[in-house]
Amino acid sequence: MSKGEPALSAEAMRPDLSLQPAGYLCAARNVGIKDQTLDFTVVLSTTPASAAATFTRNRFCGHPVTVGRQHVADGLIRAVVVNSKNANVATGAQGLEDTREICRLVGAEVGVPAEEVFPCSTGVIGRPLPMERIRQGVRGIGGQLAPGRLEEFARAILTTDTRPKWRSARVGACVLAGCCKGAGMIEPNMATMLAFFFTDAALTAEQLRQALGAAVDVSFNMLSVDTDTSTSDTALLVANGQGGSVDPVAFGSALTAMARELAQEVARDGEGATKLLEVAVSGAPDRQAARQIAKAVVNSPLVKTAVWGADPNWGRVAMAVGKCSAVPVDPDLLRIAFGELEVFASGEPREQALEPLERYLAGSRIRIAIDLGLGSSEATAWGCDLTPEYVHINGDYTT
Amino acid sequence: MSKGEPALSAEAMRPDLSLQPAGYLCAARNVGIKDQTLDFTVVLSTTPASAAATFTRNRFCGHPVTVGRQHVADGLIRAVVVNSKNANVATGAQGLEDTREICRLVGAEVGVPAEEVFPCSTGVIGRPLPMERIRQGVRGIGGQLAPGRLEEFARAILTTDTRPKWRSARVGACVLAGCCKGAGMIEPNMATMLAFFFTDAALTAEQLRQALGAAVDVSFNMLSVDTDTSTSDTALLVANGQGGSVDPVAFGSALTAMARELAQEVARDGEGATKLLEVAVSGAPDRQAARQIAKAVVNSPLVKTAVWGADPNWGRVAMAVGKCSAVPVDPDLLRIAFGELEVFASGEPREQALEPLERYLAGSRIRIAIDLGLGSSEATAWGCDLTPEYVHINGDYTT
Repeated sequence: MSKGEPALSAEAMRPDLSLQPAGYLCAARNVGIKDQTLDFTVVLSTTPASAAATFTRNRFCGHPVTVGRQHVADGLIRAVVVNSKNANVATGAQGLEDTREICRLVGAEVGVPAEEVFPCSTGVIGRPLPMERIRQGVRGIGGQLAPGRLEEFARAILTTDTRPKWRSARVGACVLAGCCKGAGMIEPNMATMLAFFFTDAALTAEQLRQALGAAVDVSFNMLSVDTDTSTSDTALLVANGQGGSVDPVAFGSALTAMARELAQEVARDGEGATKLLEVAVSGAPDRQAARQIAKAVVNSPLVKTAVWGADPNWGRVAMAVGKCSAVPVDPDLLRIAFGELEVFASGEPREQALEPLERYLAGSRIRIAIDLGLGSSEATAWGCDLTPEYVHINGDYTT
Repeated sequence: MSKGEPALSAEAMRPDLSLQPAGYLCAARNVGIKDQTLDFTVVLSTTPASAAATFTRNRFCGHPVTVGRQHVADGLIRAVVVNSKNANVATGAQGLEDTREICRLVGAEVGVPAEEVFPCSTGVIGRPLPMERIRQGVRGIGGQLAPGRLEEFARAILTTDTRPKWRSARVGACVLAGCCKGAGMIEPNMATMLAFFFTDAALTAEQLRQALGAAVDVSFNMLSVDTDTSTSDTALLVANGQGGSVDPVAFGSALTAMARELAQEVARDGEGATKLLEVAVSGAPDRQAARQIAKAVVNSPLVKTAVWGADPNWGRVAMAVGKCSAVPVDPDLLRIAFGELEVFASGEPREQALEPLERYLAGSRIRIAIDLGLGSSEATAWGCDLTPEYVHINGDYTT
């Protein structure tokens, strides 16, 4: 874990969706929610499937989160429907009814009960969905469903993302495919932005819940682009069993590895980001402290701007470690390194490190290693630099 | 409190240092720490004075914080010495000795024991102080001390600030003068950036401690420019009694009002800021919840960028309220207003509010009022917009 990426125990992971699990059909469309890009997509499992999901802890959660939580409660999902460009959050009683109607419409199109349709929406908050366009847009989508088209799904779910985020891997005789979206309003809390994993392995809903919870905990939950927890965060794992049985341990390991790679993809594509920032904390007194400090450093605007500007201002890392006042940090035991370059140890700065540090910071993947010298717990968090472009993107989002 | 500024109970506060308390001498110099601006300053009380201070909770605190805490422990301070441009933090054992030497040098110059000299430093972290320049620079400063020159002190303590921050007021027959500095690395925790209050009132150290703690709690502790808690935060209150006795309640009220105005000055002058952001939470179940939500909104990068760009994206305020998952926010009870303009109530958005909201956001002082409808506690926090200029300033700070 201290190296950031556990090896995939099965065959190597692919950086694309060139492997797809058996028995999943997909269609994607533009229904005109905001512009001309793909904004509406459906995935259908051709046979009954187990499912597990985790959701945002934001108290102001979206209506699709409310409905999705209800629909996945029995561990059975047949179809997934996602729209981008509008989150359907803070839209009142009509917004809740709109999400239920979308599940009914899609269920009728693909021939499954509305309760087996899992809905997701992301985009602007507080605007009603354009339901007339959606009603027209959903018509005939059942006949358009085709196998091997999860790439379209992965593209249609995007909002401010600059590229799709996807991975696929074999696990034993089965296939696991994953994709996610998210670039801003990203500090998932016990959940994630939108992430979807489809597999043809045969696993129970309870096995899926355990595997998903463990994977999300060390991947999306250790990710922050901007400290803002979305109202729509959802991670869904669907298994239809068409590929046969799988070793649950190997499956869990592959899922965790894939989730960690996708989390890094989100950080790398954070709004305005030019660099991936990885913060690895070791020597912590407990896991909670390690996670808290890793998050504090990865979230510090002053660390993030220094990384953007390649300013060798490593003292800001010391500041960010110290501001976690609940952790008994001892400056005399603390070690801070950028890549292999130690900048602070034994209570003393390494003055000679400034020039090589400036060179290191010019790279596109920055790793800060922090050893607290207090215990044996560790954690890794991912984020990105803070750039003028982030401000521009978000100062002019709805208008 | 819900209007943001309690009225000063004594005479009106002045937005400058045109009133100065009796018995304080000052000198300020450039000693060449970084550039040619004032970077070194001393204040001396001509008679023994009581004092109280609060400090950063950052675990990685600066050496001046360590020494200042020791020197103020007995409630007696005669002189204050501040340098800007270098924080003397994370500089090892030599850094601690450097701060002690500065206290000895200044004490010898002004004729008081080193233990009655209160030291402060802010600026870059992790670089040794240029002690040879400071030794030369401090020589003869005792002979330069003069009354009525606290403006020079208020200017010499600045770092990335664009202007001095100061207030003065009469309290009964006495005078209270305050000034502070700070523009980035500002989310004080139980303390503040650098803030200094000098009065000629006769008050005990214990009276000063109570008044300072109460004032800081609702002013600097409710201020955040960028969520980063400095390693150097210090607030000092000195009373030399030369103006005679004062009503402690009136004094406390004046101190709190002055501290709240100075906190707003810091927010308004936040690095790169173009707008003051005030977030007033009411109807909270308890004070802690009110403070937590006010801070979450004032710190949200997505709220801050929307304020910068005058984007009427009020849904981000709902998101920031909801991400405080420990508070049982109920969207159906929540009310959100910008100035007098209500944008969300009774679980429903006010669609017609978007155009007037865009106009309101074009102003330079943005007030967001949030009523949770859950109880009777309230809190107000101050911050500023997040701008491309903030990123530029901090991407290129040390180099």
